[in-house]
Amino acid sequence: MSTVEQLQQRIQVLEKELEDAKAEKDAPARQKIHQMSSEVVDTNPYSRLLALQRMGIVKKYEKIRNMTVAIVGVGGVGSVTAEMLTRCGIGKLVLFDYDKVELANMNRLFFQPNQVGQTKVDAAARTLRFINPDVEIETHNYNITTVDNFVKFMNSIKTSSLKRGPVDLVLSCVDNFEARMTINTACNELNQKWFESGVSENAVSGHIQFIVPGETACFACAPPLVVASNIDEKTLKRDGVCAASLPTTMGIVAGFLVQNTLKYLLEFGTVTHYLGYNAMQDFFPTMSLKPNASCSDRFCRQRQLESAIKPKVEECEECVEEKPLHEDNEWGICLVDETVPEETEALTIVAPGITQAYDLPNQELDLDVESEIALDISDQSLEELMAKMKSI
Amino acid sequence: MSTVEQLQQRIQVLEKELEDAKAEKDAPARQKIHQMSSEVVDTNPYSRLLALQRMGIVKKYEKIRNMTVAIVGVGGVGSVTAEMLTRCGIGKLVLFDYDKVELANMNRLFFQPNQVGQTKVDAAARTLRFINPDVEIETHNYNITTVDNFVKFMNSIKTSSLKRGPVDLVLSCVDNFEARMTINTACNELNQKWFESGVSENAVSGHIQFIVPGETACFACAPPLVVASNIDEKTLKRDGVCAASLPTTMGIVAGFLVQNTLKYLLEFGTVTHYLGYNAMQDFFPTMSLKPNASCSDRFCRQRQLESAIKPKVEECEECVEEKPLHEDNEWGICLVDETVPEETEALTIVAPGITQAYDLPNQELDLDVESEIALDISDQSLEELMAKMKSI
Repeated sequence: MSTVEQLQQRIQVLEKELEDAKAEKDAPARQKIHQMSSEVVDTNPYSRLLALQRMGIVKKYEKIRNMTVAIVGVGGVGSVTAEMLTRCGIGKLVLFDYDKVELANMNRLFFQPNQVGQTKVDAAARTLRFINPDVEIETHNYNITTVDNFVKFMNSIKTSSLKRGPVDLVLSCVDNFEARMTINTACNELNQKWFESGVSENAVSGHIQFIVPGETACFACAPPLVVASNIDEKTLKRDGVCAASLPTTMGIVAGFLVQNTLKYLLEFGTVTHYLGYNAMQDFFPTMSLKPNASCSDRFCRQRQLESAIKPKVEECEECVEEKPLHEDNEWGICLVDETVPEETEALTIVAPGITQAYDLPNQELDLDVESEIALDISDQSLEELMAKMKSI
Repeated sequence: MSTVEQLQQRIQVLEKELEDAKAEKDAPARQKIHQMSSEVVDTNPYSRLLALQRMGIVKKYEKIRNMTVAIVGVGGVGSVTAEMLTRCGIGKLVLFDYDKVELANMNRLFFQPNQVGQTKVDAAARTLRFINPDVEIETHNYNITTVDNFVKFMNSIKTSSLKRGPVDLVLSCVDNFEARMTINTACNELNQKWFESGVSENAVSGHIQFIVPGETACFACAPPLVVASNIDEKTLKRDGVCAASLPTTMGIVAGFLVQNTLKYLLEFGTVTHYLGYNAMQDFFPTMSLKPNASCSDRFCRQRQLESAIKPKVEECEECVEEKPLHEDNEWGICLVDETVPEETEALTIVAPGITQAYDLPNQELDLDVESEIALDISDQSLEELMAKMKSI
């Protein structure tokens, strides 16, 4: 027969065990590390990254700890993008999404079935902090395309870095035209460099595109470029058909996106302006697009003029080395990859393997036609350009 | 003051809560699904995969549930490979590794810090079953390169499918030459199709290679092919330098590996024989290599003869369409990608952007030199080939 005292002791033990079991779920799996070390020991999560310096790839890897990247859309591409940057030890991530995790997302990497019902940003933040507690994660659970939220979004991009200034890069991992256009509008106005990314609805092609306002084509300069999959696209038009997706294609596009992000942030290799992926044939078209002088986005036109009067530091190597395809190549299209799979699309072919997502109905888009306000900026004097900037 | 009865009740409640808290950790997050459905609802983890059928990409996606894939090496590439196949709903995975999870692995995707100290196969199996309880996971925690384990390994490859027969495909995700050679030896003897994969020690290049015994070059037919990274390789030779790795490169190589695995298993697109990735320039060399008639592996030579006498069903399209580079192109090297980044290596260049991992010291490896026992199999009669097979 138990005494009251024995029973009370038992209760204390059980309460402690229960508390521990509950705490274990959310406990960080390791302590924060305040200084990245290159020491080669099993307990150092950064040894294989710091080795990039000794291998001669990167000059100063630790710079990444001061960097902030905003990821808009934390779905099939964005969540893997966030995990890769977290494991690389990025300083801070700013996540935007307004969706919830569903079982229907389980065919892609990252989210797990126990997270169903949680908001994507909350679920992602919890996993990312658990994987690497050194990374600061800020989350925004709203739709950036509404008028009010657009103001909040602009403000975040402008002030969310570790030093309360603009983020170092914005990565678009959204799945619709409207959200991409919203990011484009914000980044042109803020003069913010960003990467666009996308995966086709049939899951077998994708792309990334680097947009430097005023220097490379923005998302409004021309209809979006998509990688031809050589599949009859008419099957996509049926109503009520849910889009297909594969963890492979989304993981590869996220990999390309983060690899080029690392190349840009840590200054190694060549940042590719447009990189496509055709999974059916393992074909990877690359190209470089200059901005459209008659772009419908006024901030894009303003950035083009600012870019024209400042000394050039970045230049597309391939464009400089190769002869232009057309003498009046005003769109600056420059082919890097010469491998051409068979084409079946009726849409405008921009480069081998790349078509426009749609042809504009009311606008002549022949690449050789002079647009009415297209100007060869390089022929103008500084005074003329300054005057033009004021008139925009 | 509590009565004994009240205290006992409190103990019962606490014991139940503790049991639940402990059970929650290992509980499956969803029930098994016995039949894949294409129904478009948030609760269906297979809707986006079955959509591949309606999109016209795949004829019968459900076939994947009858397939078994063996993954040798569950590190940076193998673990992501396993997760992608699990999320795709593969029937069964057979995992081989003999390593433990360390914090030093946290710069790659998949493993999490709470798994440190667990064997990689156990940790992987637990996560994979949690993500998708429909996938059968079999684990082998041993080094396949020892004599005893090689026999066990061969036996597993031969009998581990869902129907107790040979697996449908072996994926090599190991990080050393000896283990690759072991897989090559086993697969040649078993006439087992497999993919080799690899990532360079400087983390900025990688490749996958499809090996069909007797039809494409095996791992012993020629020195391993590596993608040129245009980085001074001498920095790699220093003693005690730990290899660099990036979640991007490893995720991309895993993506290529699983994408080509899906293309092979589900019969869509073109399975690429050799696909390289140079991260510095976003350059993707592809090629196709015929087996070496004087390969040191006798089972490779036997498979070549068997292949020569059976009617051809598979053919490298590019090889057929394009003219050979050299008239006596006995190695069957066929260039698919014409884009050539600058080369700085002294090693033998096999195709643009691809070099051999090393030059053999005692053997002439000029691609045009006739090897002493090289034979043009297609010139021989069936009787001659049958006689030669018996003499091997």
